[in-house]
Amino acid sequence: MSKTLKVGVCQMNVFDDKEANLASATRMIKEAATDGCRLVVLPEMFNCPYAAGCFPVYAESIPGKTSTELGDLSRDLSIYLVAGSIPERDVEGQIYNTSVVFNPEGKMIAKHRKMHLFDVDIPGGITFFESDTLSPGREITNFDTIYGSMGLAICYDMRFPELARAMVLRGARMIIYPAAFNQVTGPLHWEILLRSRAIDNQVFVIAASPANHPEAVYAAHGHSMVVDPWGKVIAEAGSGEMLLVTEINLETVDKVRKEIPVLKHRRPELYAM
Amino acid sequence: MSKTLKVGVCQMNVFDDKEANLASATRMIKEAATDGCRLVVLPEMFNCPYAAGCFPVYAESIPGKTSTELGDLSRDLSIYLVAGSIPERDVEGQIYNTSVVFNPEGKMIAKHRKMHLFDVDIPGGITFFESDTLSPGREITNFDTIYGSMGLAICYDMRFPELARAMVLRGARMIIYPAAFNQVTGPLHWEILLRSRAIDNQVFVIAASPANHPEAVYAAHGHSMVVDPWGKVIAEAGSGEMLLVTEINLETVDKVRKEIPVLKHRRPELYAM
Repeated sequence: MSKTLKVGVCQMNVFDDKEANLASATRMIKEAATDGCRLVVLPEMFNCPYAAGCFPVYAESIPGKTSTELGDLSRDLSIYLVAGSIPERDVEGQIYNTSVVFNPEGKMIAKHRKMHLFDVDIPGGITFFESDTLSPGREITNFDTIYGSMGLAICYDMRFPELARAMVLRGARMIIYPAAFNQVTGPLHWEILLRSRAIDNQVFVIAASPANHPEAVYAAHGHSMVVDPWGKVIAEAGSGEMLLVTEINLETVDKVRKEIPVLKHRRPELYAM
Repeated sequence: MSKTLKVGVCQMNVFDDKEANLASATRMIKEAATDGCRLVVLPEMFNCPYAAGCFPVYAESIPGKTSTELGDLSRDLSIYLVAGSIPERDVEGQIYNTSVVFNPEGKMIAKHRKMHLFDVDIPGGITFFESDTLSPGREITNFDTIYGSMGLAICYDMRFPELARAMVLRGARMIIYPAAFNQVTGPLHWEILLRSRAIDNQVFVIAASPANHPEAVYAAHGHSMVVDPWGKVIAEAGSGEMLLVTEINLETVDKVRKEIPVLKHRRPELYAM
């Protein structure tokens, strides 16, 4: 297993032009690869405004145009690409919030459909019902890389410690969350959720957000972040568009797990009693 | 159910004189009750230095002298008392890190034995093996009050999101952690663990630490804390001895759970697949 890994997180502007969004993503992915990144991550709904009414309009099948282009790009650049998420229409017409992963050969090696739909109603804050147009996924997603197993989940999925733990019990040494927190829950919970998933599970955590832009349909929180297994934020974006690049050493996972062996100290036989 | 509750957290100095420690606890509990607190919390190992070699020396049975005195005090002051923890020797001679709770009638209504023993080895940081002298508990602990159900766990127990979740699924609206983090893991993880347990479970979290004192055997982190169900720190001690008092409104639990219904959005049928 390779130990050091340069990662690039594309905190890109997302507007209402699907083609332009895909072009922006492509530009930033190329920039990351040129900079030496071997793992590149896009945000949730990178080709579609984060709005329940937009999801059916922007939806496409997987494989489809977007995923084919990005798979080819991964192959051409020889990178792992966690392709954020897009609205996916399946053969039965249901729509999911779906993230796919390509390996450096351009092969799709994982597909995660958001398992927990964001249905919240904070008076004076934010009201959003993904379930108006989306269906929830039913599967936990890990994928293997030359850097070890990684877990993949999307945005609101991060609020469920059970899911992070399940990915880690399947071997994840890193958890990647394409996400799009808003201006209410972002300042309240974004950083602390990401850091606590890292601490509890002693994994690296990468979260990719769209940029916040005054002309965007959705006001994202931004602050894409890379957290180490101690829970330290080792790289963080501001709110605007930027490529966040940092190098990580996956041996830190082993070191932390040896020093505070929480995963060995779990007592699963007692939790359900 | 009563909705507002004044809580007192006794961040007390713990020295090597067991009688003096019990006297300090008694003094601070009385001060809290005089101030109107109806729930008072002591720290982990409040009558005994936090040192593996001390536990067998200071251990006593429950019921025993310490628990009887504190039960009487709870009755006299008409308070709920979460009596931190002490080393408990059971009839078979095993020793546990045990917290008991008394109701305003002085009746012992809960007893929690620390389930996860603190066995860590951070070179250049802290090395400690509770299991050298302690045995682990085997039961999850909730107790009922006129303010609703509360969960009780001790220090290192807080690193296990499964346990917090289990207490909440049994109805907890508040989780109380007598604890004694150290000068290495305290600055790294204390606040973020407490806040993430509150956010994930939408409960109040109370953590009581011993004070940090240069003459104490153990250098505690201090920073006893009360966190609301949004994850906001609503009261925090410094590192020295102090009585931390704050008033909470348990209706906040219902409000947060309505606005972001994470507990309803859980998908337990999928986590174990």
